Amino acid sequence: MSKPVYNRIALVGLGLIASSMFWAIKRAGLAGEVTGYARSDATRSKAREIGLCDRVCDSAAEACEGADLVVLCVPVGAMGPVMAEIAPVLKPGATVSDVGSVKGHVIDAVQPHIPEGVHFVPAHPLAGTEHSGPESGFAELYDNRWCLLVPVEGTDPDAVAALRALWEGMGANVEEMDADHHDLVLSVTSHTPHLIAYTMVGVADDLRRVTDSEVIKYSAAGFRDFTRIAASDPTMWRDVFLTNKDATLEILGRFTEELFALQRAIRTGDGDMLHDYFTRTRAIRRGIIEAGQDTDAPDFGRAHGK
Amino acid sequence: MSKPVYNRIALVGLGLIASSMFWAIKRAGLAGEVTGYARSDATRSKAREIGLCDRVCDSAAEACEGADLVVLCVPVGAMGPVMAEIAPVLKPGATVSDVGSVKGHVIDAVQPHIPEGVHFVPAHPLAGTEHSGPESGFAELYDNRWCLLVPVEGTDPDAVAALRALWEGMGANVEEMDADHHDLVLSVTSHTPHLIAYTMVGVADDLRRVTDSEVIKYSAAGFRDFTRIAASDPTMWRDVFLTNKDATLEILGRFTEELFALQRAIRTGDGDMLHDYFTRTRAIRRGIIEAGQDTDAPDFGRAHGK
Repeated sequence: MSKPVYNRIALVGLGLIASSMFWAIKRAGLAGEVTGYARSDATRSKAREIGLCDRVCDSAAEACEGADLVVLCVPVGAMGPVMAEIAPVLKPGATVSDVGSVKGHVIDAVQPHIPEGVHFVPAHPLAGTEHSGPESGFAELYDNRWCLLVPVEGTDPDAVAALRALWEGMGANVEEMDADHHDLVLSVTSHTPHLIAYTMVGVADDLRRVTDSEVIKYSAAGFRDFTRIAASDPTMWRDVFLTNKDATLEILGRFTEELFALQRAIRTGDGDMLHDYFTRTRAIRRGIIEAGQDTDAPDFGRAHGK
Repeated sequence: MSKPVYNRIALVGLGLIASSMFWAIKRAGLAGEVTGYARSDATRSKAREIGLCDRVCDSAAEACEGADLVVLCVPVGAMGPVMAEIAPVLKPGATVSDVGSVKGHVIDAVQPHIPEGVHFVPAHPLAGTEHSGPESGFAELYDNRWCLLVPVEGTDPDAVAALRALWEGMGANVEEMDADHHDLVLSVTSHTPHLIAYTMVGVADDLRRVTDSEVIKYSAAGFRDFTRIAASDPTMWRDVFLTNKDATLEILGRFTEELFALQRAIRTGDGDMLHDYFTRTRAIRRGIIEAGQDTDAPDFGRAHGK
């Protein structure tokens, strides 16, 4: 058991990220009490039923009053309004953080509502699954995954250090990054890949000459991995693309440029170009496995024959 | 132990697919003897060292002479020349099959070399990993995966039935399909997704403002799954795109059309369009899990915290 990092933590929003935080906090004893709030009655009921949070509250203000750390775990587009709602009840010296996938927009939306004497330390854990909702969380989600802290200028170093200790206690590796760079890096490693996966799954769904059942039956040949990505929470991803618009459009522009170059090589039969390109991309995979961010087991280590 | 389906099977090419076939054939006792041949000395040596094939031969002709079934397990572009080489030694009544990811081109390249009295039954097992080479195979690769048989008109039904029994004995589910439809379906479920994954990984590699180490460290957020797909064998994939050109270009055209529609929605801030699109694609995932073609375990069932 670690020493508690915070006396009381409030989780606002009780989906995959918050519920995994709760189980990870409990696993390591990182807080005296964890309160929680979700907008929907059904989510709050489910949370109470499965023991998610020490206390589930019926308003965000009730959950956040007296908390030492408030973590906003709602879609990026909802961060500003939620912050405005809880601002009046925050105690002096408390820290507000979030888990949004976009940082520039969240800072713009949340920062103006932060009361004098309250710290704001934006964060983004790079972990998730295709599942959502209060039942989807598990304590191991953050183990050996990255959590990026994006403190704004002039933030109290102690507030940053405490949040770092929390995330490390939940199993994550922590780095700091500025907001613009974060949004560009994530556009490359996450946002644009998600958009592309959504697009490819949409194409399959539209193609009348190939039946749905064929697409589903024969998905193991590559498409399956796209469908997992494209099964992520629609609201979360809508907000990501709308709020990280500039970086997404820039990376999409580069993507289509490269795609057209490969398309041209296919059309003209330029096998050398294709082979060189595919050889270069293969090397990146090796780096990811060496960095411990994936398994080298065949087929992602899926269980076979079951 | 099943009853052997063939007295002698020859595997030409000893990569992931052939080596997995060997172990699956042995697991179920589907052949009296399995011979093998690979073009490279290093592959043949490695095969002998690890006991891959009952007998590794120093020429394709030696491996195929007297075989009841010859399976061409070489890249699609090499099928025609290999077939021309082994044609003179094939015994009457033997069956030639292949495992190529493109069927129209393979039929065009192989069929003209098939001797009178020899059967040709093209096939395509929809299974693979990002690894290649003789050491990458394992007996379970085909368990509960699909193998598509693409018999040409007038093929002897007994030859088709025997090949079906072999694949079923190796654990696969078998269906028949015509070549054009196969090439279109696979373009959607496999070829185009691979090209897109290669492209996205190439974009990341090009982007100088985002370092390689950042791309690798933060890959778990979606990009990681693209890198696995983009780590597949470069020669195999070059040949796939060059030989399934028409279907690939058609599906790519549809893909860019859809991508531009989503890009426009991002640019104009059309959140409803994005949300509807992402909700629709999520349903397809459910179908794949229900069809038993993937696991519902979070994060593909990867082991966590290791």
